[in-house]
Amino acid sequence: MDTPRRRGRPGHDLDAVLAAAVRLFNTRGYDATSMFDVAEALGITKSTLYHHVSGKEQLLSMAVDRAVDGLFEAAAHVQDLQGPATVRLQKLVESSVLVLAERLEFVTLLLRVRGNTQVEQHALARRREFDTLATELVKQAQAEGGIRADVDPATAARLLFGMVNSLVEWYRPERGHPEALAATVVRLAFDGLRTIAVTGDQATQEEH
Amino acid sequence: MDTPRRRGRPGHDLDAVLAAAVRLFNTRGYDATSMFDVAEALGITKSTLYHHVSGKEQLLSMAVDRAVDGLFEAAAHVQDLQGPATVRLQKLVESSVLVLAERLEFVTLLLRVRGNTQVEQHALARRREFDTLATELVKQAQAEGGIRADVDPATAARLLFGMVNSLVEWYRPERGHPEALAATVVRLAFDGLRTIAVTGDQATQEEH
Repeated sequence: MDTPRRRGRPGHDLDAVLAAAVRLFNTRGYDATSMFDVAEALGITKSTLYHHVSGKEQLLSMAVDRAVDGLFEAAAHVQDLQGPATVRLQKLVESSVLVLAERLEFVTLLLRVRGNTQVEQHALARRREFDTLATELVKQAQAEGGIRADVDPATAARLLFGMVNSLVEWYRPERGHPEALAATVVRLAFDGLRTIAVTGDQATQEEH
Repeated sequence: MDTPRRRGRPGHDLDAVLAAAVRLFNTRGYDATSMFDVAEALGITKSTLYHHVSGKEQLLSMAVDRAVDGLFEAAAHVQDLQGPATVRLQKLVESSVLVLAERLEFVTLLLRVRGNTQVEQHALARRREFDTLATELVKQAQAEGGIRADVDPATAARLLFGMVNSLVEWYRPERGHPEALAATVVRLAFDGLRTIAVTGDQATQEEH
């Protein structure tokens, strides 16, 4: 937003190139998008585009890195925090929502990657690494007694970040502040939707 | 599972045709799959395949209907229940997990549909209808005091079913019983991951 404009012809810098590429990859699919399409979307020639990047695979690589790097920066920050694992897990969920909201198109691309190329394989490996890290945090929080013990840690981690990742399907900046959304996700996941006023009887009276 | 085998040459009945088609659509993509590919996967000729279905779009239509119908049957069942909206919402979440686990490939296809054809447009419209229904249930549950009032109902519905839908990314039958998974989803979403033992002080001491 407020980052200083880079040198060079306006709209042709690397950020603009990446933004145009990721938009095309998400709407048409990576395979169906050519370097010509990216150049055309930017209103530049293909040779000008090759001045910025070596090819389509480099565009894909840089685009998924924007998403992955954001998530791992959040994870690194959380690892550095002191205090209960439950709080660190909560922070990781919050930060992930903010990264998704801020890098929506990049994370959308990351989540659609299926592993056909080396770049995609690498992205999938990084996603698995993030899942492992989240699962470890759930395990620690359970060991500390902060997270309920009656959920499988890997399942809980997948559900938590499955909920976070679902944002790419429906979140749009005009739908409200990312901070408010992060707070809602945390409330739902950590404290639950149910009000304390609902008694066990009420909650189960219709079971059969 | 225990449905009686239909008449006709084994493996060539409509269920087998649909299963083969949906598997190809999910792995290669709908556009990249031809009727020849589907016939080849079944070990039959294209003309035998056309004996079962009129074309690829009918296969897509029947496949997404399997997913959508399952979800709407669950919704209809829930609407018929008496009792608090909170309990009905909980039942809808549970049933949706079971439908997803049972019709995993079909729901995977449904969730990837982007609306390029009439069949896809129809599927998207049905998904929106389901979202509206879930949002209404959250609103009713809030009005009754069973669901916390400090979450936006549409956001809560999207997060709930975003979490449920994330199953298509990682759930595999060998990962455990769908019923146990449904119970975990409900526990997380309705009662929260946090144990009651964690005090407000503990939960916030690392905030800054």
